[in-house]
Amino acid sequence: MSDKKLQVIPLGGLGEFGMNCMALRYGDDIIVLDAGMMFPDSELLGVDIVTPDFSYLEENEQFVRAIILTHGHEDHIGAMPFLLSLMNVPVYGTPFTLALVERRLDEHEMREDAKLNRVKPGQKIDIGPFLIEFIHVTHSIVSSVALAITTPLGVVIHTGDFKIDPTPTDNILFDLHTFAEYGKRGVLLLLSDSTNVDRAGYTPSERTVMPRFEEIFNRAERRIVIAAFSSSIHRLQQILTLSARMGRKVAFVGRSMLSATEIAHNLGLLHIPDNLLLRPQDIMSAPPHKVVCVVSGTQGEPMSAMSRVAVDNHKSLRLERGDVVVHSARIIPGNEKGIGRMFNHVARRGAEVVAGTMSPPIHVSGHGAQEELNLLLNLVRPKYFVPIHGEYWQMSKHARLASHLKDHGLEDTFVLETGQTLVIDAKGARKGEKVTVGRVCIDSGSLDEVVEDMMIRDRRHLSEDGFVIPIVAIDKNTGKCEGLPEIVSRGFVKLEEGSEVMTAARQVVARTLEVSSKEERGDLGLMQEKIRADLKRFLSKSTSRRPLIMPVILEV
Amino acid sequence: MSDKKLQVIPLGGLGEFGMNCMALRYGDDIIVLDAGMMFPDSELLGVDIVTPDFSYLEENEQFVRAIILTHGHEDHIGAMPFLLSLMNVPVYGTPFTLALVERRLDEHEMREDAKLNRVKPGQKIDIGPFLIEFIHVTHSIVSSVALAITTPLGVVIHTGDFKIDPTPTDNILFDLHTFAEYGKRGVLLLLSDSTNVDRAGYTPSERTVMPRFEEIFNRAERRIVIAAFSSSIHRLQQILTLSARMGRKVAFVGRSMLSATEIAHNLGLLHIPDNLLLRPQDIMSAPPHKVVCVVSGTQGEPMSAMSRVAVDNHKSLRLERGDVVVHSARIIPGNEKGIGRMFNHVARRGAEVVAGTMSPPIHVSGHGAQEELNLLLNLVRPKYFVPIHGEYWQMSKHARLASHLKDHGLEDTFVLETGQTLVIDAKGARKGEKVTVGRVCIDSGSLDEVVEDMMIRDRRHLSEDGFVIPIVAIDKNTGKCEGLPEIVSRGFVKLEEGSEVMTAARQVVARTLEVSSKEERGDLGLMQEKIRADLKRFLSKSTSRRPLIMPVILEV
Repeated sequence: MSDKKLQVIPLGGLGEFGMNCMALRYGDDIIVLDAGMMFPDSELLGVDIVTPDFSYLEENEQFVRAIILTHGHEDHIGAMPFLLSLMNVPVYGTPFTLALVERRLDEHEMREDAKLNRVKPGQKIDIGPFLIEFIHVTHSIVSSVALAITTPLGVVIHTGDFKIDPTPTDNILFDLHTFAEYGKRGVLLLLSDSTNVDRAGYTPSERTVMPRFEEIFNRAERRIVIAAFSSSIHRLQQILTLSARMGRKVAFVGRSMLSATEIAHNLGLLHIPDNLLLRPQDIMSAPPHKVVCVVSGTQGEPMSAMSRVAVDNHKSLRLERGDVVVHSARIIPGNEKGIGRMFNHVARRGAEVVAGTMSPPIHVSGHGAQEELNLLLNLVRPKYFVPIHGEYWQMSKHARLASHLKDHGLEDTFVLETGQTLVIDAKGARKGEKVTVGRVCIDSGSLDEVVEDMMIRDRRHLSEDGFVIPIVAIDKNTGKCEGLPEIVSRGFVKLEEGSEVMTAARQVVARTLEVSSKEERGDLGLMQEKIRADLKRFLSKSTSRRPLIMPVILEV
Repeated sequence: MSDKKLQVIPLGGLGEFGMNCMALRYGDDIIVLDAGMMFPDSELLGVDIVTPDFSYLEENEQFVRAIILTHGHEDHIGAMPFLLSLMNVPVYGTPFTLALVERRLDEHEMREDAKLNRVKPGQKIDIGPFLIEFIHVTHSIVSSVALAITTPLGVVIHTGDFKIDPTPTDNILFDLHTFAEYGKRGVLLLLSDSTNVDRAGYTPSERTVMPRFEEIFNRAERRIVIAAFSSSIHRLQQILTLSARMGRKVAFVGRSMLSATEIAHNLGLLHIPDNLLLRPQDIMSAPPHKVVCVVSGTQGEPMSAMSRVAVDNHKSLRLERGDVVVHSARIIPGNEKGIGRMFNHVARRGAEVVAGTMSPPIHVSGHGAQEELNLLLNLVRPKYFVPIHGEYWQMSKHARLASHLKDHGLEDTFVLETGQTLVIDAKGARKGEKVTVGRVCIDSGSLDEVVEDMMIRDRRHLSEDGFVIPIVAIDKNTGKCEGLPEIVSRGFVKLEEGSEVMTAARQVVARTLEVSSKEERGDLGLMQEKIRADLKRFLSKSTSRRPLIMPVILEV
């Protein structure tokens, strides 16, 4: 037995939704498990993305040996450019996960320097005192793994995100056997995904969406437009296979959709039958009953491809009466309103919206429900258990779910929040010190521009550039803005009343309103985003600064 | 056949969620069907409630004969004080519905003047050219009715909100027979509830929640705290009955919960077994395993009883380790985040949260799903159909659902949005002119104060008082606000930089931050609401004005 202690240091994702990141430390060796981002909600207006505060890792930079990634979802890899710009340590992940990391790094011209190491499920790697085995799990994204980390004090299992799909579309089964084996030999600590702990029973297999798609394909008389997550390769594969069978061509629409499918195809993870693809620019000239469009932008994000399509603002695809628009994705909490507005725009164009709960379903979750969580707990039967990936109440529920294991060796369960460490040594496990954590808001420039690596480095604390609040009062009768919009600013970028920049900025906002349709002006979320994008571009050019921009729109 | 035309004039609730209101006009006679409010979402910060713009009714005041109410939910009666302050016409509704209207009118000291007429299902009343029959329907609130309105041109059926519950808890069945009879004789126009059109199958009976409550009551070792809608009398009855059976006393907590149960009890709609009730002030002294608390505030509204309980800020109830908190209500879209935060506060206190989807369910909807909507369509088989109560895409879906009736006499379906009238005359039905509609934002003062009738009358257009934006930058490391918060204002209430009022207002905001706990300061939605409430009270007192107040909170 070692006399050193093992520390579990949650840096994000415990007690909050997204930006999953955790450090595991044994003595003077640290490995980082995932480095995700969080999409800001409407209460964090003016911010593009949110990443964990990496202060703890910065302070201990010399001890950080590697970053290990479980899968390629943004809430697990989205902060990689920012973390790697702080410390260029080796990264380990499956080929698909790393390809998605490369795509992110490309945006910041950081790909060449990165030390990316491809691993396969079943493979084991040695990093200092840690022996890490990658275990295949089923999830909505392909090439997902859990981690079994053998330390001098015992085995730590980190599930990543998972469901236990008995019939995955690629027929690569969840690796129950390896979990069972570790469970048999004894596991010190289990860290397990809590996302769907409030759902009873079993999450349905990914295959269960097929009958619904068949029903839609059988009855649709014109274009079928499917909004899906670009990383849902299993889902896209099913759509491709069905389209080929039904004699429809498939166009991928949206930047992330195009790049994700290209990556998956190149890695042999997405099989695209010959002559099946249709270029986006050919959509409108092909016979409508022979076309399927798979479009990114499931959350009503105002600048996404699907949102643009919904308001006739996309160059390749225009909705027409009789089209069917399918929402094959979950609704991330907080996005309901925006998604509803997108559906309304679609319906006003005479297209049918297929969305919501139905049986067979049009979407299934990638996270395990209660009985899958129970199955995993029973396979692993750890000595200590820490629920991860969830809000506090969900992790509490997961902790409660595990209580039946008390008769099977479970000694203690800890509900930790981001920043609250756990210490395990020869005497057992207990809560340790708290470390600095938090949310770092980043204006990624992801909308139109490429942000340089240096800018990220220099300006992690955006607030240093201050904030700008454009205030627009729209007359609800005329739909127009009376006079020039007002702008309030504070901080580094201080727009003086009556200054040239200020006047020009007000004109930029006024112009955004002018060029928007009445339908767009009635959509507050969309207008906020348009004003923000235009004003950001203007201020970036004229002041070289990127303040937080939070439009306030009033109907008067 | 008459030579006059029948006009259907939607004033709210078609293409938007809430504030349901419709006028029916034949010649120079108008009846108003429902007058509801809408709870503003986070995009309409600074507003308490939203009502329809009643301009059309004001312009035609001399023709308005009556207001007919289908049921007592706020989205159907919440605008009654505002409408009655414009025109004091006779009101018709069931006793429970009118009692809830009286409660609203009491807040504005308007009860005495109101002309409220109690009606029973099966009863018919004559109003000008309209003969109105009230038909019993099942819904989450008791005493709900649909309306069959015989006009010289034919029968119009307005469903109100409904589900078709085959086993209602009060055993008063949905009146299928009357719908069938009208259907047999011929219905000119059907207006039917679209809320749940995106759900397949049948909404489960209200009774199906009982097994879940039994499971919770059987295992709970301490207090059971149930958050429910105060108007869900069926639900409350089931809780009371079960509590009596299980030997627990019941405390109603929250103003609206106390008044709604008192009203229902007085009308004989809620049976409260003897010696079952516990006064709120006695909760903490009674044995925890003998207590059930039924609390209002299901949507995470920061000032509601349940939200206060969740942060130990309620005078009668404090959560303790081992308590079970049950969320027996739907989540209104847009409230997910706030409700999640409330659950987190609850879980941090060691109480278990029971919420989400499960089987048996902890909540069932009061609105019919697709097969119930189909059943109603088939019973009524109207000549014309207009879906009501839903967003545009939901009404479109409902229109599509009705298309199978084309073989059974359905001539046309119209998807109307609020403001778009429908005209029916001897030649048939067609879209008519558009009338003035919109949202009127009202600062009701409902949080702490009673607003005088005159204030409502004078100040329907709140924007005349301008708006005030307090800007608070909270240091994310210290959790403190640096210096005094800033305040930006425009419009009538113009706070001059450096003026006494301005300085005092900034101090009010600073004080709100000071007296809040760290947990509260981390909850942006809660802090916005607290700042708004305090600043409103201050400005109302010092300036006699009630501007829109929209706090902006930045983490820096």
